[in-house]
Amino acid sequence: MVPQDVLRIIDENRQRYVDELLGFLHIPSVSTYSHHSSDVQEAANWVFNHLQRLGMQTRIYRTQRHPIVYGTCASTKDRPTVLIYGHYDVQPPEPLDEWLTPPFAPTIRDGYVYARGATDDKGQFMTYLKAIDAILSVAKALPVNVKVLVEGEEEIGSPSMETFLNEHRHELTADVVALSDGSQFGQGIPAITYGLRGLSYLHVDLQGPRFDLHSGGFGGLIANPVQVLAEVLVKLKDPHGRVAIPGFYDDVEPLQQWERDEMAALPFNEDHLKAYLGVEELTGELGYTPMERKTARPTLDVNGIWGGFSGEGAKTIIPARAGAKVSMRLVPRQKSERINRLFREFVHSLNPRGVKLEITDLYGCDPVLVSRDDASVQAAEKAIEIGFGKAPVFIREGGSIPIVNLLKESLGMDSILLLGWGSPDDGPHSPNERFSLDDFHRGIRSIAALLYELADS
Amino acid sequence: MVPQDVLRIIDENRQRYVDELLGFLHIPSVSTYSHHSSDVQEAANWVFNHLQRLGMQTRIYRTQRHPIVYGTCASTKDRPTVLIYGHYDVQPPEPLDEWLTPPFAPTIRDGYVYARGATDDKGQFMTYLKAIDAILSVAKALPVNVKVLVEGEEEIGSPSMETFLNEHRHELTADVVALSDGSQFGQGIPAITYGLRGLSYLHVDLQGPRFDLHSGGFGGLIANPVQVLAEVLVKLKDPHGRVAIPGFYDDVEPLQQWERDEMAALPFNEDHLKAYLGVEELTGELGYTPMERKTARPTLDVNGIWGGFSGEGAKTIIPARAGAKVSMRLVPRQKSERINRLFREFVHSLNPRGVKLEITDLYGCDPVLVSRDDASVQAAEKAIEIGFGKAPVFIREGGSIPIVNLLKESLGMDSILLLGWGSPDDGPHSPNERFSLDDFHRGIRSIAALLYELADS
Repeated sequence: MVPQDVLRIIDENRQRYVDELLGFLHIPSVSTYSHHSSDVQEAANWVFNHLQRLGMQTRIYRTQRHPIVYGTCASTKDRPTVLIYGHYDVQPPEPLDEWLTPPFAPTIRDGYVYARGATDDKGQFMTYLKAIDAILSVAKALPVNVKVLVEGEEEIGSPSMETFLNEHRHELTADVVALSDGSQFGQGIPAITYGLRGLSYLHVDLQGPRFDLHSGGFGGLIANPVQVLAEVLVKLKDPHGRVAIPGFYDDVEPLQQWERDEMAALPFNEDHLKAYLGVEELTGELGYTPMERKTARPTLDVNGIWGGFSGEGAKTIIPARAGAKVSMRLVPRQKSERINRLFREFVHSLNPRGVKLEITDLYGCDPVLVSRDDASVQAAEKAIEIGFGKAPVFIREGGSIPIVNLLKESLGMDSILLLGWGSPDDGPHSPNERFSLDDFHRGIRSIAALLYELADS
Repeated sequence: MVPQDVLRIIDENRQRYVDELLGFLHIPSVSTYSHHSSDVQEAANWVFNHLQRLGMQTRIYRTQRHPIVYGTCASTKDRPTVLIYGHYDVQPPEPLDEWLTPPFAPTIRDGYVYARGATDDKGQFMTYLKAIDAILSVAKALPVNVKVLVEGEEEIGSPSMETFLNEHRHELTADVVALSDGSQFGQGIPAITYGLRGLSYLHVDLQGPRFDLHSGGFGGLIANPVQVLAEVLVKLKDPHGRVAIPGFYDDVEPLQQWERDEMAALPFNEDHLKAYLGVEELTGELGYTPMERKTARPTLDVNGIWGGFSGEGAKTIIPARAGAKVSMRLVPRQKSERINRLFREFVHSLNPRGVKLEITDLYGCDPVLVSRDDASVQAAEKAIEIGFGKAPVFIREGGSIPIVNLLKESLGMDSILLLGWGSPDDGPHSPNERFSLDDFHRGIRSIAALLYELADS
């Protein structure tokens, strides 16, 4: 049980923790842009220095792109070991003109900090560092052994982690993994996540004529790559909102009735959601509730499209090329590698006329379900009750956390605690991403409590 | 008949004329971009100074955007009057990285000048100025009265011309209008154009959620505006390549057999065209030859599309919005205003779910057919034979020259000579736009001959 002194320290230092978070959020560590490499390195150094100040044994490991920071802090030998995971890289901030305040000038409004990375994942990851900070200011040692693993490539699919985990398998041995890179079920409804969707992400390029053509001189004569692309995209879904790629649903595990009942029991206000999103209706796969569709059913989205002229005014051309980024969210037991292959085969089978087709895999990650019947889960339930003042619900999330798959497979970990402190309306990949400072505080309290509960479990 | 001295002067000054053209092509007079306004003004001044040096009475007229330059040069009272039209503005040069040499650093390679505006329309328009220059260096006066009207808004649909023409109707009275803003039928096959397609150009915007959303957290829940846009675009055409907008073909004048025969007799090498364009097949409306499809049948093209993330790597979002520019090429007797309306009504009738739809007219222009039975046409035939050494063929062009409609309607002109000196592979709206210096020279000779032939006609 977490000592009251630790919780008091956390309450007293609330403002200092926020100030430190703002410093972290100032660093534009956008991992996908090569011109931000030095900023990503700066964020790695920031984490490294922070772990060192906590008295951890700390190292930076180079990778092909962005470094992995690793720190350890031993308790006594017979205590369990917790491997904490986080990432210091962030999504691109675009579209920039939709931010009320600049994405890398963190700003506090109405109890939220607004910045790219606020909730995903700098703010959430920092709850672990500050919980450790608070404990060590009261106690001589942590109640459990802690290993902290922080990467800078999460937003580009963690390409270096598999090799790293395999090479450092023995060093990373732990009894339980804990990470916070998702969200609560809703405002004031803390949750433990036991399922994540997987992801297949591809890039489709169509080349028509060698160069943009005058649409007067050539209109009617050749295939327009934008129109051909539109035809391809439309064929990816059927009129009932189902993905139309043959074999796509073959491995999907049907939802069990108990799980559908549990999801139906979660508080869900469709009108609030529509107002928040600014849409008049929710749409999606026929035969499933919104909650099921967004967390436990696979889907397909076009993430971006381009081709031809998009500037001011009119330009009368037939574009030389067009392209789209397409991703699919996968559910247990779909495999991203197979889905990528099915996607490529299907699109090639459409055999679009008059254009050259090229499909590139951007990345993939399999869906995952983690155990709900583990002592660590009960420890987390108690800890969240201490941190938030109420018991968590159990949920599945629509997003992917590829590292969870890697930790499961490379380290053979079954006990994985997914403790999202964010809120579903934080906008993790959107303009004006934010994180509640109350939740930041509650998260720190919960992690402090968790480390003690795990020591007792 | 043009004096041999005039033709000799044109041959002797060939290089000087080219040098002057290069100066004109240096000016980036992109009329659609507001940040190029001062460049457009500079091009207007260039034309003004050039006309003045030819001894013309010259004026610049302000408009809402870019000025109109007007010059006159009287012959003797009983000679016919020719109104010469040209435009000094150009299309946007994008995509810039596909130019072998910069679009506004005109470069000569293999007998062509490469620059934005080389063929459309600076190079072609200059043939008139240099023909006048040559005649006036030999003769005291021109064989006909000449009025030169040069605008800077052709590439944005000539929004100021209707008002201008109506206000200056009496000043602009002429017996025949001549302009060169198109192309020959092919390499070494000069042509007189007697038909132009019209244009309807619209902008479609779809707004989905208020901001880009994480595709993990929201995938499966709401309509994706890019996918909805793709569905809309696909419904604009049927599987036979016909435009699927109800009523679109109502007013289309069926092609006559004599005209189909005449088009079939024109030399056309499909393999050469495919090799030039880099496509494996030509596609289009079923039941019509490529020549018919590209000049005498209406069509629809997406000129540009955008939505979501198109940067490096992967970004897992559902885009907040998507948009496209769509244009239709019209044939006699379609009316662009009606077609714009039919387009809007049809797209709204599709009633795309989960998004807000907005359609904006960008511009329109009606198709046109001009008389082939006029004395001025015979004069032009003879002049081209002098300039090019062979008689022209008669063709219809796929593009639009909105000014032709305005001149026809506002000034009540029936005699309009469309004398394209360009070549179909000049790439007028493409990267690496070019103009043959031989054709520039032949065009100057032809115009000199034309002014004498018209005096005799």
